[in-house]
Amino acid sequence: MPSIASSPDHTVIDLRSDTLTKPTTEMRAAMASAEVGDDVYGEDPTVNLLEARAAEVFGREAGLFVPTGTMGNQVAIRLHTRPGQEILCESRAHILDWEMGMAAAFSGAQIRTVVAPRGILSWELLAPFVYTRSTFRSATALIEIENTHNMAGGVCTPLPELEEIWHEAKKRNLPVHLDGARVFNAATALNVDVKTLTRGFDTVMFCLSKGLCAPVGSMLVGSRDAIDEARVYRKALGGGMRQAGILAAAGLIALNKMPARLHEDHANARMLASAIAQLPEVEIDLESVQTNIVIFELKTRKPVEVIASLKAKGVLISQVGPRAVRLVTHHDVDHVACEQAARVLVETL
Amino acid sequence: MPSIASSPDHTVIDLRSDTLTKPTTEMRAAMASAEVGDDVYGEDPTVNLLEARAAEVFGREAGLFVPTGTMGNQVAIRLHTRPGQEILCESRAHILDWEMGMAAAFSGAQIRTVVAPRGILSWELLAPFVYTRSTFRSATALIEIENTHNMAGGVCTPLPELEEIWHEAKKRNLPVHLDGARVFNAATALNVDVKTLTRGFDTVMFCLSKGLCAPVGSMLVGSRDAIDEARVYRKALGGGMRQAGILAAAGLIALNKMPARLHEDHANARMLASAIAQLPEVEIDLESVQTNIVIFELKTRKPVEVIASLKAKGVLISQVGPRAVRLVTHHDVDHVACEQAARVLVETL
Amino acid sequence: MPSIASSPDHTVIDLRSDTLTKPTTEMRAAMASAEVGDDVYGEDPTVNLLEARAAEVFGREAGLFVPTGTMGNQVAIRLHTRPGQEILCESRAHILDWEMGMAAAFSGAQIRTVVAPRGILSWELLAPFVYTRSTFRSATALIEIENTHNMAGGVCTPLPELEEIWHEAKKRNLPVHLDGARVFNAATALNVDVKTLTRGFDTVMFCLSKGLCAPVGSMLVGSRDAIDEARVYRKALGGGMRQAGILAAAGLIALNKMPARLHEDHANARMLASAIAQLPEVEIDLESVQTNIVIFELKTRKPVEVIASLKAKGVLISQVGPRAVRLVTHHDVDHVACEQAARVLVETL
Amino acid sequence: MPSIASSPDHTVIDLRSDTLTKPTTEMRAAMASAEVGDDVYGEDPTVNLLEARAAEVFGREAGLFVPTGTMGNQVAIRLHTRPGQEILCESRAHILDWEMGMAAAFSGAQIRTVVAPRGILSWELLAPFVYTRSTFRSATALIEIENTHNMAGGVCTPLPELEEIWHEAKKRNLPVHLDGARVFNAATALNVDVKTLTRGFDTVMFCLSKGLCAPVGSMLVGSRDAIDEARVYRKALGGGMRQAGILAAAGLIALNKMPARLHEDHANARMLASAIAQLPEVEIDLESVQTNIVIFELKTRKPVEVIASLKAKGVLISQVGPRAVRLVTHHDVDHVACEQAARVLVETL
Repeated sequence: MPSIASSPDHTVIDLRSDTLTKPTTEMRAAMASAEVGDDVYGEDPTVNLLEARAAEVFGREAGLFVPTGTMGNQVAIRLHTRPGQEILCESRAHILDWEMGMAAAFSGAQIRTVVAPRGILSWELLAPFVYTRSTFRSATALIEIENTHNMAGGVCTPLPELEEIWHEAKKRNLPVHLDGARVFNAATALNVDVKTLTRGFDTVMFCLSKGLCAPVGSMLVGSRDAIDEARVYRKALGGGMRQAGILAAAGLIALNKMPARLHEDHANARMLASAIAQLPEVEIDLESVQTNIVIFELKTRKPVEVIASLKAKGVLISQVGPRAVRLVTHHDVDHVACEQAARVLVETL
Repeated sequence: MPSIASSPDHTVIDLRSDTLTKPTTEMRAAMASAEVGDDVYGEDPTVNLLEARAAEVFGREAGLFVPTGTMGNQVAIRLHTRPGQEILCESRAHILDWEMGMAAAFSGAQIRTVVAPRGILSWELLAPFVYTRSTFRSATALIEIENTHNMAGGVCTPLPELEEIWHEAKKRNLPVHLDGARVFNAATALNVDVKTLTRGFDTVMFCLSKGLCAPVGSMLVGSRDAIDEARVYRKALGGGMRQAGILAAAGLIALNKMPARLHEDHANARMLASAIAQLPEVEIDLESVQTNIVIFELKTRKPVEVIASLKAKGVLISQVGPRAVRLVTHHDVDHVACEQAARVLVETL
Repeated sequence: MPSIASSPDHTVIDLRSDTLTKPTTEMRAAMASAEVGDDVYGEDPTVNLLEARAAEVFGREAGLFVPTGTMGNQVAIRLHTRPGQEILCESRAHILDWEMGMAAAFSGAQIRTVVAPRGILSWELLAPFVYTRSTFRSATALIEIENTHNMAGGVCTPLPELEEIWHEAKKRNLPVHLDGARVFNAATALNVDVKTLTRGFDTVMFCLSKGLCAPVGSMLVGSRDAIDEARVYRKALGGGMRQAGILAAAGLIALNKMPARLHEDHANARMLASAIAQLPEVEIDLESVQTNIVIFELKTRKPVEVIASLKAKGVLISQVGPRAVRLVTHHDVDHVACEQAARVLVETL
Repeated sequence: MPSIASSPDHTVIDLRSDTLTKPTTEMRAAMASAEVGDDVYGEDPTVNLLEARAAEVFGREAGLFVPTGTMGNQVAIRLHTRPGQEILCESRAHILDWEMGMAAAFSGAQIRTVVAPRGILSWELLAPFVYTRSTFRSATALIEIENTHNMAGGVCTPLPELEEIWHEAKKRNLPVHLDGARVFNAATALNVDVKTLTRGFDTVMFCLSKGLCAPVGSMLVGSRDAIDEARVYRKALGGGMRQAGILAAAGLIALNKMPARLHEDHANARMLASAIAQLPEVEIDLESVQTNIVIFELKTRKPVEVIASLKAKGVLISQVGPRAVRLVTHHDVDHVACEQAARVLVETL
């Protein structure tokens, strides 16, 4: 029998990540009939439409389609830093933990981390680590915020904290970039539109894949100048795809239609978290379950064993720390399946 | 009236590049119904199929799908070099001229160029520039060959030249990488299968887009170890796409069916070159017109003006040097259209 | 009147750093008569002597003279890492805080920090952050230890902790580098010879300047292969000096004669720390005063003001944190001067 | 018997390079009594004096002492470029051939070479390779000139050529850096003072070692802003030496007194070149012998053999190409010794 990993079974309830979402039927139809051109020449009409739409939704001058969130973040880092400078971010930021050391390898920039309770940064926490140019130490070039914060369990940084950071950073001519891989989840949970929630960032990256279900693609939005320069770095990273309109066609649906249903994933996550919280084996901070991610720690059992037991019963989850495991709810696992997953989890733990 | 560039017109004969080719009807159908999974988890069955097929066609252990040829080349450069080392290539190589300085920016590698007649490198030309490690100068880490050679006019490096380079490089433990963006054009023109034509290279990059018509995508093939490591660098560059099977579905058709028709593009290119060669205004090396690229120089007129005149008459070509212009034949411009283009060129020049 | 900074006055008691030590009379004489040659050609006899002597003292195959400790550390980082990999070190390591982001800018390596009580790392603290190669996250390439640990207040990591780290790292083929800028201070305080205290490190950097009083220079020692390769990176960084024997002549005296007097600096530091510890304004961890560095925090007064008051009374110290200040004892401030400094400090605080 | 290389003999006539020059007696005395301080704190009075003097001689706002010419050039490259941009220089430039690939490894910059007759660049030669920012190719960030041009045989680029380059570059906001390792030789040969000969460069690096006989050290001069930023990169590269005044003391003598005698080296080089030019075995371009370097090619004999024969007779020269050898005249080989070398050369060839 082939392993679940190599040949996913449709009866499996896969809560490992929302990156697993598959394109919807509507997206497949849009891709099949998309009008395309050579996007390296700026001539793909569907990509151009998506970039304009993304800019509009976020209230910016321009947008750029990139194949992945990592590329979007790394293009932004390159835009805002020079080699040898520092990026200030939370201690478990995606750009530190899951982007293959590219801040260093591509931009020559050093990451300086700040530990924030529940992953929520504030100016007070950041301020002591903001350095200006000297011949003694590396200068801070960029502040990076991740909202929602994946490794903190999908926690949202609220608008007031962001506003203070934007304000203080602006005073110091310090750019602020948003890793908004799941910013629509944050906007949904905080009940603020994304334009408002991101208006003080110099650049914003958000994903069309993950909860929004596009097969491939993320966006970077910002000023016209920033995006013109970002286009140079996208090409450098090998992101200058040709008839990318195929992917942009799905991206337009992701952007226009899918945010409206994210509250369902959040409800499912809360349901799962509540069920799990009852278990003696589990340590969970329920206040951190704000969106579609549920992270909890196992008190005595080994994550690998628990993951294997669950897998044998058709529920997939992933390990994210020595004792921590993670569930992510998404479009392809509906409420009924989540209830089934909850039963299996309770039964197993 | 909108410019041709921003709103391409289907009556236009676009010979600027074979990157302009659009996915065929069969490709669109395959993309609409492709079975997909999360390729970052190695679970996209269509990507896995394409990678296995590419490895088979080139007689290698493994293959890797990448969004662009630039990413494929840069992943290979990273694989074979360490910062401060040198890459030896022809003076007008794509990795020098059109990859945004990424050999330096991503791999910290220095490019050393060798001028080769018609762009055809040989061991004799390369040998004087192969350096070993010392505290005086940067050591050679990689030899890179481009076949066909774009800026030399789509010229093919024949098998005997390659065999000598492979042999001498192997003796020195020096890896050799092929930028085979158009290697199927070379194989067609030389009447050698790609497996034979590339068997001595440590890694081979080839494009599914360009003449093979896939909307997006290139492949890197090599040993299992090389491709395992390449996967790390692809992720770093932001090439870890999720449900990439959408694109791989078109790529499979490109790889399996499209090479067989490239001889048509070559015949069209020869026809165009012969027509142009008659003109007093034109300087062309007919022996360099071996595949689907025609480069020629204008004796007195300015390229920009000639390009504008042709554009007004519905024929698009591009400038590739102070006096040089380029035509590229491809799937989306058939023989009749090429004959029409030839008439317009003769009339204009 | 010129400021103290621009024209240091010999009546001033300068405890800002042991980097301020001036060459001794013996060193000046040795420099004046040093036999020299072109060290880039490997022909400087005095440099060769110093490199051989350093290797001998540390029980290694080879040594390399470098102009600064930063260059020595950065050469070692380059030696042990590839771009995109991680270096594991303590959260306030010199390579993170005071080397201008060069791990990222020169080696493309990402620093991952571990917070250690009193700056003393152990395998238990390091283990959870050691990652192997995957396509998800950056792999650990190097563990770096700083002994004594400057920002932790000159604290020593004892031999047993080091032995466990060496042992576990070796099992994983993970190199370990020592930033031993002040390793002779550690050896003095721990009463272990430097050869024993460093025998499990793959490479060791130590400074001839600082407490050992040479005007310029540090050493990197390791295996013959490592040092041969290090020589390439030293040249790259611009450290290939010509008649460097001038400096090496002073370095030989620093290495052979100066370690024996470091216990005097330590006694002075303890005396200063004890005096300061009485003051209500001061927060100090006396157990961390193990060598020639005294760091303490001010409870209410601002460091800049206190530093200015002390300066007005002829005592120079430096700020090393929002509330923290640092004193460093050294050869050029004798016991009497340290007692005078203690009086001024008590009087001022 | 030890080899000549490892234990240089004073009866040997060493014409391998002017980097071999040893500090003069006056320099040794100055070093022994130099007033020093911690230059990282900006407090070394002798370094400060040398930096001010260098700025004055070159008519600039500020100067920076660096341990080597390589560091000076690489600091300048970092100052003027961003990763992925291009540096335009002559095809045999020192920054390409002898600086260990650091333009790529430290600055992420790509070198684009222009072949110039006798190594003398002009705007006409450079212009076709100046690119502006696009998403297709890397933009030109810097033009670099080497005067005198080492690998071209110590040839001087005359003032009019430089003036046109400065003028055209300025129109395009393109900085121009001088690798003036031997700019005093150029000034001597062209009979122009260095201030005039370099006034249009944005930054100038020149060496105090080589023909000027300081044991260690080079200078970078430019605007106050440029040098302030350069100081950051010098620290990053590990060039922040402590009591560097020891070296600066010799540097002051090199700068103030030694240029006046370079004409003697030039006369010796011309004498040697004339003697050699008579020999049937030798191919030499006498017009390129303008300063202290003599490069010639051997028609039939192998350079290694000829070098060994000469070495056996007490004359050391070096190989600089497959058939090319180089002699460099300097302070430590006087006219009599040069005449002896000429006799040995004639006798051997």
